[in-house]
Amino acid sequence: MAEAFFRSRWVERPPHVTELAGDSGLPGGFRAAGVTAGLKPSGNPDLGLLVCDAPEPVSAARFTASGAAAAPVLLTQERCNLHSLRVVLANSGCANAATGRRGLEDAAKTQGAAAAATGTDAAHVALASTGGISQYLPVEAMLKGVLAASARLSAHGDASFQEAIQTTDAFEKRANLQVELPSGTVRLNAQCKGAGMISPNFATMLCFIETDAALSAETADLLLGVCVKRSFDRASVDGQLSTNDTALLLCSGASGVTVAPESEDELRFGEALDALLRQLALMMVADGEGAGRLARVIVRGGNPGGVEAAARAVANSPLVKAALHGGDPNWGRIVQAVGGALPGTAPLQLDVAIEGIQVCSAGAALDYDRAALDEAVKRHEVEYEVGLPGEGADTEVFFSDLSHEYVTVNADYTT
Amino acid sequence: MAEAFFRSRWVERPPHVTELAGDSGLPGGFRAAGVTAGLKPSGNPDLGLLVCDAPEPVSAARFTASGAAAAPVLLTQERCNLHSLRVVLANSGCANAATGRRGLEDAAKTQGAAAAATGTDAAHVALASTGGISQYLPVEAMLKGVLAASARLSAHGDASFQEAIQTTDAFEKRANLQVELPSGTVRLNAQCKGAGMISPNFATMLCFIETDAALSAETADLLLGVCVKRSFDRASVDGQLSTNDTALLLCSGASGVTVAPESEDELRFGEALDALLRQLALMMVADGEGAGRLARVIVRGGNPGGVEAAARAVANSPLVKAALHGGDPNWGRIVQAVGGALPGTAPLQLDVAIEGIQVCSAGAALDYDRAALDEAVKRHEVEYEVGLPGEGADTEVFFSDLSHEYVTVNADYTT
Repeated sequence: MAEAFFRSRWVERPPHVTELAGDSGLPGGFRAAGVTAGLKPSGNPDLGLLVCDAPEPVSAARFTASGAAAAPVLLTQERCNLHSLRVVLANSGCANAATGRRGLEDAAKTQGAAAAATGTDAAHVALASTGGISQYLPVEAMLKGVLAASARLSAHGDASFQEAIQTTDAFEKRANLQVELPSGTVRLNAQCKGAGMISPNFATMLCFIETDAALSAETADLLLGVCVKRSFDRASVDGQLSTNDTALLLCSGASGVTVAPESEDELRFGEALDALLRQLALMMVADGEGAGRLARVIVRGGNPGGVEAAARAVANSPLVKAALHGGDPNWGRIVQAVGGALPGTAPLQLDVAIEGIQVCSAGAALDYDRAALDEAVKRHEVEYEVGLPGEGADTEVFFSDLSHEYVTVNADYTT
Repeated sequence: MAEAFFRSRWVERPPHVTELAGDSGLPGGFRAAGVTAGLKPSGNPDLGLLVCDAPEPVSAARFTASGAAAAPVLLTQERCNLHSLRVVLANSGCANAATGRRGLEDAAKTQGAAAAATGTDAAHVALASTGGISQYLPVEAMLKGVLAASARLSAHGDASFQEAIQTTDAFEKRANLQVELPSGTVRLNAQCKGAGMISPNFATMLCFIETDAALSAETADLLLGVCVKRSFDRASVDGQLSTNDTALLLCSGASGVTVAPESEDELRFGEALDALLRQLALMMVADGEGAGRLARVIVRGGNPGGVEAAARAVANSPLVKAALHGGDPNWGRIVQAVGGALPGTAPLQLDVAIEGIQVCSAGAALDYDRAALDEAVKRHEVEYEVGLPGEGADTEVFFSDLSHEYVTVNADYTT
């Protein structure tokens, strides 16, 4: 029996969500395909095409905030109607980033080809790329790949589409869900890739979500925005913002079930989308390059800016991450990371607990059960809680450890 | 023959500065000692005492900005007259950080003991500690150590003082300089420790500087401030701000040479202090835990906030650091790090050069000599230059690589 999709203790499967078999196909109104266009030296699939056949598809999108955003991100943001995307052309093997105007023109050619091959206006074709930064897109290979993929589009093409967008991913991040809403049953699928928030040699985070529910553009945008903030925005492998991060939600409406604003349907659909994206985010962290252990840091108190800075500092501290890797109970590194993130606040009265064992109160070390802590930090998932003075804010960040394997992947296997 | 102190291509020894032998002793008016107080399990020296015998010593100080600043930092900042410090009590083996009010009281006891042993008021005794965070100071051992050290104070005690403040340092960071000023010859010594901006298990950066020149408190403060900004503020091993960072400049005036404000003497003395601290900062980076290669990133253009954010992002990117380690020419990681540091600026027209080889212009990859770049990134010191659109700002950061050894030091050798 396949491993359950919802597998982390930090994400609960909502009771109205059911996991379907991996081969249950896309939600109604969608077809997809993945082919080998020849962008990867390995010869693995590297071009994916996703099409929504609904008369009036609705979509929502989120992108990287990077100042060095890649050509496909810029082109999709600037030239597409993000609320009515119908086609997604995704490739691995080349990020088309740091490629300037030529990169934009290359991307535009592939967008035009995908529009022609699917009978769509180019403004409805989103582009997403992942792979090495600084390489120019092999346009001819892409154009041939688009034609090949368009000939193979299938309602069961989600697995091959997923395969085509993967890079260093060690395992598949794909979900086929069924969601019971008060107004009826809908489907919710996703294909996602990412092994590190970013690893310019190979990775980047992409996520494509399909549903046969009918959502207005405003509802789709609202729900995607909220859920991305609680999932992909809360995950860090190495604190590195990608040039290519893209998350798209496409709604075909083929189920005939409408998710109206501020309805119970919206609440339930939102819960399902939230759990889906959080589990995918955790899978990306768990599949972080070289990751052995997974952690969650929760920071409470202070103010929104403070808890965010503190949580990110802990999650991105190489010292905290190395200690996580080594199963080292050295919580002084948590104190150091938080102190470094909140300069000028000394003496900071912070509390620290690891897996529920409080080790520091109001800035001072406590006498705690060292054997219990030693055991707790050697678990596969480790939870840190930090309390700052004051009330009113809290946040969390999921992160992976810093291992020899991370160094090996990113240093020893050179380009 | 001993290796020269000024050994980096990125720091030039000013022509009026001469390196003296390591055993040439402290500048006039200073005595120091290092002893084993028993704080380190290894039995290595762990307590240092530095005393200025001048009638009216002048001093200046800089400390970590960490919100979790350690007890010795807080006590020295709040209770000492930082412009007339006479005594420094420094210890390794315990950072006295995350120790709350008890930590402050423990520190105060050792301050009182050092004051009594040297016949000074406690307000003139600075404290500096380095070692494990979250451990309470072994006060009794410290008090005995203070007495032992005070009995061994010597004008040639700088080497043993240096030894007592070291932790994971692989080599000595100590200078004995002679500086020719228009008004006469003065001495300038320093003892420094640090292998990583921070490594809470062991490290932290401490630097003590002595001169027999006579400076006003304002001049000492101005020069130390400017030079720290150009040295220790520009160095990063792992981007982690310490709880204990301390830099102190003590001036005995014993040479009879006065460094008057806005004089040629001040200019020359400042140049010497600047070169001294920059070389020490580079030594700390070179001695960064597991460091194999050293890098400098220079960012020009844009605005002050932008160049600072971009330079720090490059210096602290685990992907850039892993590529530096592997001798990997993957400059896409530079683009990614800069883009991540400057969100919302896409498409950023940035230029990138490595060791003078331009690889990216106005955001687009160039056709460059790959063999030359492959060779350049395998050197011991690698220089990256980033150009942002606009003019008017520039900065630099020195950093080390991310190696297997860093992971080993910080993960595998657990506390």
